[in-house]
Formats: sequence, structure tokens, C-alpha cells
Amino acid sequence: MAFKKIKGATDYYPDDKYAQEKVFSVFSETAEGYGFSKVEAPAIETIELLTAKSGEEIKKQIFTIEKKGSEDLGLRFEFTASVARMFIEKQKAIQKPVKWFSIDRVWRYERPQAGRDREFYQYNAEIYGSANPEADAEVINLAIDSLLTLGLSKDDFYVKINNRKLLFGLLSDVVPEEKITNVIRVIDKRSKISEKDFETELDFLGKAAIEKIKKILTISWDKLKDLKMNDNAEEGYKELSEVIKYLDSDIIRFDITVARGLDYYTGTVFEIFDKSGKYRALAGGGRYDTMIELFGGQKTPATGFAMGYSTLSMLLSEKKLLANKVPGPDYYIATITEGTDEKVIENAVKIAGKLRKKASVVTDLMRRQLGKQLSYADSINAKNVIFVGPEEIKKKKVKIKNMESGKETEIEISKI
Amino acid sequence: MAFKKIKGATDYYPDDKYAQEKVFSVFSETAEGYGFSKVEAPAIETIELLTAKSGEEIKKQIFTIEKKGSEDLGLRFEFTASVARMFIEKQKAIQKPVKWFSIDRVWRYERPQAGRDREFYQYNAEIYGSANPEADAEVINLAIDSLLTLGLSKDDFYVKINNRKLLFGLLSDVVPEEKITNVIRVIDKRSKISEKDFETELDFLGKAAIEKIKKILTISWDKLKDLKMNDNAEEGYKELSEVIKYLDSDIIRFDITVARGLDYYTGTVFEIFDKSGKYRALAGGGRYDTMIELFGGQKTPATGFAMGYSTLSMLLSEKKLLANKVPGPDYYIATITEGTDEKVIENAVKIAGKLRKKASVVTDLMRRQLGKQLSYADSINAKNVIFVGPEEIKKKKVKIKNMESGKETEIEISKI
Repeated sequence: MAFKKIKGATDYYPDDKYAQEKVFSVFSETAEGYGFSKVEAPAIETIELLTAKSGEEIKKQIFTIEKKGSEDLGLRFEFTASVARMFIEKQKAIQKPVKWFSIDRVWRYERPQAGRDREFYQYNAEIYGSANPEADAEVINLAIDSLLTLGLSKDDFYVKINNRKLLFGLLSDVVPEEKITNVIRVIDKRSKISEKDFETELDFLGKAAIEKIKKILTISWDKLKDLKMNDNAEEGYKELSEVIKYLDSDIIRFDITVARGLDYYTGTVFEIFDKSGKYRALAGGGRYDTMIELFGGQKTPATGFAMGYSTLSMLLSEKKLLANKVPGPDYYIATITEGTDEKVIENAVKIAGKLRKKASVVTDLMRRQLGKQLSYADSINAKNVIFVGPEEIKKKKVKIKNMESGKETEIEISKI
Repeated sequence: MAFKKIKGATDYYPDDKYAQEKVFSVFSETAEGYGFSKVEAPAIETIELLTAKSGEEIKKQIFTIEKKGSEDLGLRFEFTASVARMFIEKQKAIQKPVKWFSIDRVWRYERPQAGRDREFYQYNAEIYGSANPEADAEVINLAIDSLLTLGLSKDDFYVKINNRKLLFGLLSDVVPEEKITNVIRVIDKRSKISEKDFETELDFLGKAAIEKIKKILTISWDKLKDLKMNDNAEEGYKELSEVIKYLDSDIIRFDITVARGLDYYTGTVFEIFDKSGKYRALAGGGRYDTMIELFGGQKTPATGFAMGYSTLSMLLSEKKLLANKVPGPDYYIATITEGTDEKVIENAVKIAGKLRKKASVVTDLMRRQLGKQLSYADSINAKNVIFVGPEEIKKKKVKIKNMESGKETEIEISKI
């Protein structure tokens, strides 16, 4: 009987965990460089909170907990709701803007596939309190900077940017208000379905409207300037123009089809993709100015993004930007004994204790012969091997071998 | 309608998260100094795994997941089972000893109280493959070193140490084999119940046996030497003597009552307590040589410990060893404008971008008046404030004010 890990989850062995933590350090350092502070909500939240912005529909995707006490509980499937709850609790006490980020697990009951686990990590950042375009630009620039700091370049990824008011405004000229949500739902999956299926799904609008929608969906940034727009579209266009001023035009592409599904976004929205088109979105986010109020807080503008680790790590690995080996210890202390010589072991442990004040040190623990110890030292990539035996203890000197250069030096034990 | 966090969980706001991460860094660095590598199992495991070593009884404490697919799932309540599963999967491929640690969440459905949340963090370390006393000593020394590196001293905590074979051996002279587990269960809670309740619970053994047990439970290390012991007790005594040789006698206290409950331990066991006696155990662990085989792997000796963050953070806080404030950004860029001057904002954003290559920088985002900006800069503990206005842009120079010393300097924008 051997146990299995659950479907759609990852065991992080040392090399993978090391690679992941390197990426997370870059996230943290970049976010802190922008003045964001790390926060962390519990993994378990009430179902009431989890379904508040997406409705009961989302429950299918939530890992719900069997009820024991009075609470209906589930594992979070994203951070925004939890962090909003935390923000609302302190919102009167802290000066705005509040800039928070998290790097943590989320859970979604979905069909597992490449780049999509049921348990996975997200890097999430939000700004509460600023309605200005420089706040939207800041979260987008933070996402971009995080990727650049990981070693990716402008040749590897780009940011699709849009504005919900602009998209809604343009559509509202063609589609009755109450049907826009349905149309957005279809636009959102357009890249995944055929032209014909796209048209079939919009059938309820009639041929003429479908043609107009298709035209809207191919509109370029330059053409927008000359377009006569309604107020809503005009406002979205103006907002987006102001955000774009603060962004690197080499990385940004206007794309009217970016809708961010049925989510809670109200203004500028964006998604980040790898240029090869091989992977799912690396990140997505945007402005959501109504959610804090909807959640029972004081009306507060907000903007943020989430970036998944699964897809990103595949891209980093392909580009050879993911660490692939945990570094070995600075020293392995090999014990030279005939049979078990406890005095030698005690000396090795003592030397290890002294060295650990400034270095990482591994001792034998197995009472093996020297050959096997060296094979072990090699398997863990030890940088140096120190040899301790009865002779060495008598002479009060040990030999240190640098495993890369092969160079050997001798040092007095008392000077270690 | 405002949402609440669940019972028995913690929201980590920036200051608390910062303090926690500082502690976790010390854990990681200390463990890496001993050559341990970080690993991470999923939070969700199969019920089969979770109940394998503790039986169905433990299910009361598990947050179980409502079944959706074919798997019965729950949240882990400790790490050992998950890490054992990971070890077994690779056991043939890696050289022993395997030294792994984790710092991560666990969940227990218990009554929340001070120092005991339902969702909490543990630091866990295990060595697989060595049956030698220096391995036991290494995990104990790692736990001790982790606490010392956090700034605690020998005056703050101590390690209670015992050996299960010794305790079982001594008890087996007095108690029938099949009743020892029951007796251990009572010994385990002895410090929490009255003398009278202790005797009542052991009533089934008869008065004479109870008196003998009470005598065993007061035995000192020195007295053991002269005691005539059965083979099992003798073996435990010898094991413990060998482990103790590698430990600091100032920190270690032999305590025959340390049983580690109904757990899977087979040899040396230990628990770490604060000296004031105010808190629950800081850590606990020991040797478990049968579990890997029980879990379907090849028989492998193992030893390890777990240390909780909740209790430890209370002790660290009391001793003023817990960070209490997230550090502020290096620079706050204040924009001096009459009304909104987008050129000034653009310049501020540009300067921030340049500075972020080497420092953390916050810009206004709110288009506030200078006074309010300075109040905000103060609230986030900004170390320096840079002033950017139309005059500064014209002169191509900005003023930098050190917020601690009040000293002001001027610098050319091009030199930032």
C-alpha cells in the first residue's frame, strides 16, 4: 500500500521548491520596490464571501468543506475577495492608497491539465483608494517589471490592454443593454471557438448585429480616434489613453476583445501573454471600482492583478530562466574511521557546529566508509569536503578539498 | 453586509506578515545551514493518507472536503504523512540520508484559543535514512539553533528529552503489555489533570501498580544509571545516552514523562518549552523508525520535529524579538502642483522608475496637496521624500529630504 498525491496538485521536491522560491523572491522584491506590502488572508473563507462577487455558479469550482460548526466554508479560488475583506476591516484606520500583495495558494476544482492544477500559486497585487490612471499604470508596470526582473524580455511577452467602458460603450450601440453580458461571455471565449460557433452563439442578435460586432472586435487604437463614440465609450477611451501614457509602448497592445469575462472589472483591463502564443495567460487584472462597496465597505476605487505560477514557470523553464538545482552545502565533513569511532564523529559534529555560524555544513550521519561518503557529498553537490579522522585529530589539522577545482588545503582545527 | 473571516484563523496585515516572514527566514537559513532542503506537499491529501498513522479517530480534527470526484480529500493537519509520501515516491532514486524541511500551513478543527488557531503555520524538519544517535541529535540541535538564531537564549527555553523504549520498558515491569498504550495516554495529560484524576484514570491497574508508576515518573537521569532495567528499557537508555552526548547539557532536561501521546514515535522523543511555563510546547519531535514501512515504503529509520508559529510568536513578542513594523520605502516622491499637472506626475513616475532599479519608491497616485502627501509619506514610514514640481523640472534638479535627520540635499534629475 503506497499513498498517492491528489489529482491536480504538485509535490515540490527540493529543486522545484528552490526554483519556485527564487521566482517568489523576485515578485516580493519587485512589489516592495513599488511600495507594496505583503499581506496574507486565511486559505479558508466563508462561502458567503467566496460567492459574493461571482454568484452561486462559482460553487462548482470551489473546494467546499464538510460542515462541522456553524460556518459554511470553502477554500479560496482567488485573492481579491479575501483581501477586500481585510481592507474593509481596516479601511477607516489607514491612509489611502493601500498597496498590498500576496503570494500564496488558491484552489479550483477544474479538470487538471498542463499549466492548470487544482491547487496552485498566485502572485496578487492591489491598490485601493486611487481612481487615477497612474494607479492603473502602476499595477501594470509592476506586473511587467516582475517579469522583466525574472529575466524575460520584451521579445518574450506582451500586454493586451483594453477598457470595459469602451467595450461596453461600443457594444451598446449594437446590442440591447440587457444582452451585453451574454455577448461579453461569447467574446471572451472567441479565441477558443470557431468563427461559425461564434456566430451561432450570437444568433439571438440577428445577422446585422453580428456583423457589426465583428467589426467592433477588429478595431485598432488609431481608428478609435476618428470614431464617433457614445459617452460611455468616450470615457473608456479617455481613461485608457491616460493609462497608456505611463506604459512602455513596446510591450502594450490595444485589444478591444479583452473583456475579462464575467468579472467585476469597471475600467482598464489587461492580460499578459507570451509572444509565442503557446501558453495560457500569464497574468490578468484591471480596475474594479464597485466591489468594495458591494462587499459592505465604503466606496473605494481599486485596481490590481493576479499572476499564476504554473504557466509562468513553464515559460521560464523554456527560456532557461528557472533555477534547476538547489545549491549544495558549503562543506561536507567526511569522517575517516575504521569501524565506528565515536571520538571522530564527535569531532566532526563539533567542527560542523563551529562552521555553521557562517556556512552550510553536512556531516555523515550514516557511519559509512569514505568512498560512500564522497559519493553522497557528490550527490548533494557539496562545494568542499573536510576530512576528519584519528590522524587529523591527533595533528589538530584537517584537510579541505574544493570539489570543483580539486585543490586541497590544510587548516588547524582551532582556527575553524 | 460586511464579511467576516472564519473562526480560528489569522489575517496577516503588513506588520504581522513582515514579522512572520522574518522568523521564517531564520528557520530556512538555519535549516539550510544544516544541509536541509525545503520541500512542499499539497495542502490537500487523501483521507486514506491522513488517517493512516493516527486512525479514523483523527477525522474529527480534519477539515474534510465535500466529495466531488472519486477522491476522499481533506486538509493536512501535520506534515509528516505528506512528506513521508513524497519520500517513498523517490526513496529508491536518492542517496540517504534525505534531509527535508517545510514551513507551511496546517489545519485542525479544534476549539480556537490563545496560541491555537484552526489554520496555522508549522516549521517541520525530517531526516530519513539514519538510525544513528547523531541524526536524533541533529534534528534537536536544528530546533535549538533555530530558536537561538531568533534571539532567544538558554534562559528562555529548554528541551525535555526522553526515549519511548525506556518509558515502555520501565512501564512494562508494572503494566501488562496491552494496557501500556492506555497508560501512556493518561501520562500524556498528567500535567493538565489533578493528582486525583490521574489516579482515577489509572484505577483499572490497582493501587500498587499506580504507586509504582508514580515512582517511575519521578525518576532522574542519575538514578537510571543504577537501576536494573529490562532489555527494552536498557536499549532506550543507551540510545538516549548516545544522543545526549551531542547536545548542550544546559538546554536539555531528561523527563521520563515525555511520551508524545499516541504518536508513531519509536525512540528518542523531545519537546521544547519556554522556561516561564506560560505557553504550550514550542516544538516536539523524535524518532519514528516504522512509519515509512507502514506507509508502503522500504523500511527506513527517520527522525524529525515540528515547531508551531503561533506559540513561538507569542514568546518572541513577549521577549521583544518579533519585528513589529514593516520597513518604509526608501523614497516617497511628492508632487508639487497647483491643481493637476500631468507633466509633473509623468516626471515623478519617470524618476520613480529610475530609482526602483536600486531602491523602493512610492509616488502619490492620489493627486493630493503637498501637506496630505507628507502625512501619507509619514504614515508609511518613508525614509526620504523627493519633491518634484514645475520649478524642479525647469531647473532639472530635485530636493531630497531625509525624514529622520531632516537634512535636505539637491540632486540633478539626470543623475538619479
